This record gives sequence, structure tokens and C-alpha cells, in this order.
Amino acid sequence: AKSQSVAKETNKRAVNYSNRGKSLEDDLNETNMFYLHRNMANIHKKPVPIQIVKVDYPARSAAVIKEAYFRTPSTTDYNGVWNGYYIDFEAKETDSKTSFPLKNIHPHQMDHMHSVTIQRGVAFFIVRFSTLNRNFVISYHVVAKWFSAMGEGGRKSIPIAVFEQDAIEISEGYVPRLDYLQAVKKLIANY
Amino acid sequence: AKSQSVAKETNKRAVNYSNRGKSLEDDLNETNMFYLHRNMANIHKKPVPIQIVKVDYPARSAAVIKEAYFRTPSTTDYNGVWNGYYIDFEAKETDSKTSFPLKNIHPHQMDHMHSVTIQRGVAFFIVRFSTLNRNFVISYHVVAKWFSAMGEGGRKSIPIAVFEQDAIEISEGYVPRLDYLQAVKKLIANY
Ligand SMILES: [Mg+2]
Ligand SMILES: [Mg+2]
Repeated sequence: AKSQSVAKETNKRAVNYSNRGKSLEDDLNETNMFYLHRNMANIHKKPVPIQIVKVDYPARSAAVIKEAYFRTPSTTDYNGVWNGYYIDFEAKETDSKTSFPLKNIHPHQMDHMHSVTIQRGVAFFIVRFSTLNRNFVISYHVVAKWFSAMGEGGRKSIPIAVFEQDAIEISEGYVPRLDYLQAVKKLIANY
Repeated sequence: AKSQSVAKETNKRAVNYSNRGKSLEDDLNETNMFYLHRNMANIHKKPVPIQIVKVDYPARSAAVIKEAYFRTPSTTDYNGVWNGYYIDFEAKETDSKTSFPLKNIHPHQMDHMHSVTIQRGVAFFIVRFSTLNRNFVISYHVVAKWFSAMGEGGRKSIPIAVFEQDAIEISEGYVPRLDYLQAVKKLIANY
């Protein structure tokens, strides 16, 4: 009965969500709220790290940050827990129709994910090919192979054929908007 | 040989770290860096969430945030992964010598930790009694018992005797500065 009512809700809300053009981040935040409220997972986007330089404390109102700078994140965009597994991922969008450019990935993000896998966490990327409207969950291990090949003079992007072969595609258009947890479960099963 | 050199380093650095008065957060950040660099754990403090209102983009220099506000965090201070376990905790300091006031804890932090334990993550508090210079790792489950008792008219603080009995004390004064991972391992063993 429970899965039926979710299915109905899905149909209803699919109308509202049918408008394209939402960012991957928006879709993931909505999806994470969906998981959280249904006790399916506890995964959050981390706040953007800020270097605060000057704060005003006006009488009788909230503190105002008057000067601050964006800092480079030392980790990934999202982390959390599902069913005892530590989940850690980075979300990336590309306009390319043919491949995912590795320049989108910072070396420190790879270092972080390497460290996560050493601690037996589950690390991956969610990559959206915006123009194609296709989304993939791709394991850190697959990306790492291409990333180090690039370091040794290999190509600077991962062809979409690799995603089709070695990653897990997520379809859009229902609630949750981008049900990546299904793909993560498959990823874990193959770990 | 490796553990010996670490032991030596401990003695050396104990001198530098012997000055009191560092915040709990500083001690934890140092400890987390220690764990990270030795592949012992991957645990980070989350950035403070900020609502950005106005950003200037000066020519040829970094973007400057000119107006922003502090937002209430929806989760806890720290999370990460150790040996396959999702780790999630909140750090709190109190000046009291006799008990930990529960008003230090926001209900949304309890909700978050409840959700984490549903997902089989490990949730706890690190509480520093600053005046006594004593630090404890206390399980979410213990705090939750006192928190809900307070909601039903019970006392508004957890006596230090409860910490001595039901929490795990961490000693200071070596490298890492506050080796809470040892306590967390005990906590997990008793989960
Ligand atoms: Mg990203
Ligand atoms: Mg705190």
C-alpha cells in the first residue's frame, strides 16, 4: 500500500517537475530532502566554505557579514549515510555531448575520494550531460583510472561510451527527481 | 619502527601543545588533520552555512561577498568515515563544573542524529568541561534519554556523574591533541 501511494504521488508531481532547466544541484537537494523525510538516507550538501573577514553586529538585529571570500573546498559536495554505508560524492555538469572533461575535477577532490575509499566509504560522481539530459552515477574507481591515465599523457576526458558501459544511468522525471540511491545500491553490490 | 617514530614525535610536540586555552574546535580540527594524514580516518568540520545576499566581482581580483548572514545549521558540526563506519558528531563546551546544560543542544541536532542512527551511522557528542579540563565522548543514545526526559519535565542538564559512568573520557596532552577515535571505537564496540 505504501509503495502504491508513493507511485500516485510520483505521477502527480511529475507534472510540476517536468520543466527542464533546473540545476543538478537543485535536483539533488530535492532528492535528498525526499530521502531524509522518508528515512531512506541522510545525505546533505555541504555549505560552501567562506573566509569571513568582517562582521557587523547591529543593535537588535542579526549579524551581517560585510566582507568574506570564497575558499576552495577541501572535500566533495555531498556526504552522508545510507544503511550503514558512508556515502561521498561530487556532482558535475557538462554541456558536452560526447565526453566528460576531466578538467572539471580538482586533484584535491580525487585525493579526498581516495582517502574515503581507504576508509571503506563509497565514493562516486554524479555527472549530468545537460545537453543530452542524461545523468550517470560513476564510481570513483572508474574516474581515478582515467584521471591517472591523463596524468601520464592520456586523453583529457571520459567518452560517453565509458559512462554507458561502466557507469549507471539514472532516469529523471519522477519523485524523487533523480533517484541516485538506486544506482548507488548497484554500485555497492559491485564494489 | 613506525609506531616508535610516532611516539617520539608525540613527546616532541607535547611541548608545543601544552598551552591550555585552545578551543575544542581547534583541538578537533588538528586531530582530524592528524587522522587524515595518517590514513586513520577521514572526518571534517562542515563549513558554517551562510546566506549570501550580495557579491562584488572586482576586475582582476577575487569575488568579494559584501552582504551575507549566518544560517542555522540543519545538521551537526562534524562528519566523516572511519573503517566503514559513518561518523557524525557535535562538539560542545561548557563552563559548568557539575553538569552539561541541555540548552546547548538544538532540537534539530537531535532530529538529525536520530536520523543518522536510523541509517546505522555512529552519532555522538564530544563535550568539554572547560573549567575542569575534561573531555568526554557521549553517545547520542545517552543524550537522547536525558533530552526527552527534559521534555517531560525532567532536569535540564546531564550531571557530570553520568558522563563518568556512561560516557568515555578522552585525555589531552599528546598528539593527536584529543584522540577521540579511541573512544569512538569503544562506543562502536558497545553499540
Ligand atoms: Mg560540484
Ligand atoms: Mg558545536
